[in-house]
Amino acid sequence: MQRSHKLLFTPGPLNTSPTVRQAMLEDMGSRDEQFIQLIASVRDGILGVGGVHQSDGFEAIPLQGSGTYAIESVLTTAIGPEDRQLILVNGAYGRRIVDISACHRLNYEVYEVPENCLHDASRIEALLKDSRFDFLTAVHCETTTGILNPISQWGSLARQHGCKFIVDAMSSFGGVSINLAIEPIDYLISSANKCLQGVPGLAFVIARRDALMSIRHPARTISLDILQQLRGFEKNGQFRFTPPTHLMCALQQALNELEKEGGVTQRASRYMQNHEVLCDGMSRLGFRQYVPSELQSHIITAFLYPENPRFAFEDFYRRLSARGMVIYPGKLTQVDCFRIGCIGHLFPDDMRDLLGVIEAVLKEMHVKIPV
Amino acid sequence: MQRSHKLLFTPGPLNTSPTVRQAMLEDMGSRDEQFIQLIASVRDGILGVGGVHQSDGFEAIPLQGSGTYAIESVLTTAIGPEDRQLILVNGAYGRRIVDISACHRLNYEVYEVPENCLHDASRIEALLKDSRFDFLTAVHCETTTGILNPISQWGSLARQHGCKFIVDAMSSFGGVSINLAIEPIDYLISSANKCLQGVPGLAFVIARRDALMSIRHPARTISLDILQQLRGFEKNGQFRFTPPTHLMCALQQALNELEKEGGVTQRASRYMQNHEVLCDGMSRLGFRQYVPSELQSHIITAFLYPENPRFAFEDFYRRLSARGMVIYPGKLTQVDCFRIGCIGHLFPDDMRDLLGVIEAVLKEMHVKIPV
Repeated sequence: MQRSHKLLFTPGPLNTSPTVRQAMLEDMGSRDEQFIQLIASVRDGILGVGGVHQSDGFEAIPLQGSGTYAIESVLTTAIGPEDRQLILVNGAYGRRIVDISACHRLNYEVYEVPENCLHDASRIEALLKDSRFDFLTAVHCETTTGILNPISQWGSLARQHGCKFIVDAMSSFGGVSINLAIEPIDYLISSANKCLQGVPGLAFVIARRDALMSIRHPARTISLDILQQLRGFEKNGQFRFTPPTHLMCALQQALNELEKEGGVTQRASRYMQNHEVLCDGMSRLGFRQYVPSELQSHIITAFLYPENPRFAFEDFYRRLSARGMVIYPGKLTQVDCFRIGCIGHLFPDDMRDLLGVIEAVLKEMHVKIPV
Repeated sequence: MQRSHKLLFTPGPLNTSPTVRQAMLEDMGSRDEQFIQLIASVRDGILGVGGVHQSDGFEAIPLQGSGTYAIESVLTTAIGPEDRQLILVNGAYGRRIVDISACHRLNYEVYEVPENCLHDASRIEALLKDSRFDFLTAVHCETTTGILNPISQWGSLARQHGCKFIVDAMSSFGGVSINLAIEPIDYLISSANKCLQGVPGLAFVIARRDALMSIRHPARTISLDILQQLRGFEKNGQFRFTPPTHLMCALQQALNELEKEGGVTQRASRYMQNHEVLCDGMSRLGFRQYVPSELQSHIITAFLYPENPRFAFEDFYRRLSARGMVIYPGKLTQVDCFRIGCIGHLFPDDMRDLLGVIEAVLKEMHVKIPV
């Protein structure tokens, strides 16, 4: 098979459409009216994906940098020196929230469970009841494994116990329906280059305006201060610092294309088809999934290394990559896995192509997996 | 005049070449070999612009985000809790260094002079002699006015008094020759979208390896920790967090084009021509410069508002912008100025076009300036 571009079956950077990339062919002045209008339109578009408008009391704040920058921006802007945070962890991205909280010496406690398990709701409730927490922070789809955490349930518990709820929805927003008008989420963080199918280097925060406006302490950084950025937008509609104009143009185009596809419902449906084709095929080839299927999202799936001494992941990866198919290594602490993403500008036929290549590569490697 | 794209006579985002923008048309996997090679090549290329190689003891660390992110990354990674910093200020970007230092509660003192003046070298020397400072931090070309600060002199003073020297070379690097093999600079900070003519959203730090390796305290953030990023590059050649792959491709192409143009000397020569055409023409139209010409760089120039009640900057700006010419408002605290940049993918004929449009717009506005 000959491809000019590789297909990315990864959690990001993802495949984008040619038209999204072509939207980057224009230089724009960051303080010019045309770009100021684009910022406003992108901010509205992001809120729309979450099912809300600014008049519902929400603000979308784009922030240049990777998703981790935006996570750090929320933790260091929203959480004050006296505040206490409960962090729910079942993967590497939950642990990153802990690392950021530790770096900034926030007050926090961690409730961690194994990477293929969900947290015990009654234990969360007991923790929230026994200790005075101001923030509950959690990951929606843990990209480490693809496990989908029950944020609606957790949000209700947070509300009942007077906690603000911070959700890392990096790999789910736009690919799993999240209606912010219903979900009790105060801060949602995601990136342009996940299910919105923009290009990487730009993330964003959706915040409840009243949560942001109740902040009474200074932010812990200048660059990642989302409250000051919001005030900047309100003052003159502009970014405080030279923004990635080309990435904003790509995100605008990506939001247009999401709407054209039929919104989150239709996009989720395509990803689900991708996921179904992938899992059926991988199962047929003898691969087993790490996460129980009832907890597995349609975003990314972790597959256990086959128990065959001839299977060496590096070799497997390189052979796939040489044929234009880029998969993703594991990020698990305990178990040997690799991951295959179903998001981005990918379609069921791309998943079938990948499966064909995997089958051929396994043959080349003389790896037979008992089905 | 009909233009499909506006010309940006600003300090950034700047005009880039069509080929730099076209380099963003490919999606790349961030952990794939092809991209790992690109990272290495871009890091080498950045060092090359500074006249050095990695084997000379320098490291280039690209960091996604605006230039301010990279300034904050150096201050919060390099400067420890016991260290003392002297900050030289003669414009908004010097003050931003102060703001970042204050936000992170670094120990610092400020020596500030008016925005069209240089600091008194004997006063700097006395400050360095009297107080124990560990860091001297300064801006090379203060984009606020276009004044060019004497970093060679300041670097020597820093060395004589055992200080590390941090230079914000945001708007000068690549457009003014800086030979790091000679200049006593420990940390130099710049951005892809200034004189390198890449696209915005990506900055970088060039650090002396021994300075970085002598750091014994933890960084104050996770996202902006350039020492951890360097360790990441050394471990597997990759970014720690999802990088802006398209912006890196653009920067690689921009570095190729800088080399093809003949390196920094030739690029500086083009910018000097742009500057000369601009200043001659503006003088002919009656505009006066804010900074004395012997201190003025060829990067960006601040022009005083003409003393004519019919001149309203907003109106002037909008009329120019409507004709495809984007200039930049002032950022001065005391004086009413606007700014015109000479950097980016701009040529003397573009400057002449701008001058023609300015002349026409002044006529439309019935603004006559006594020459």
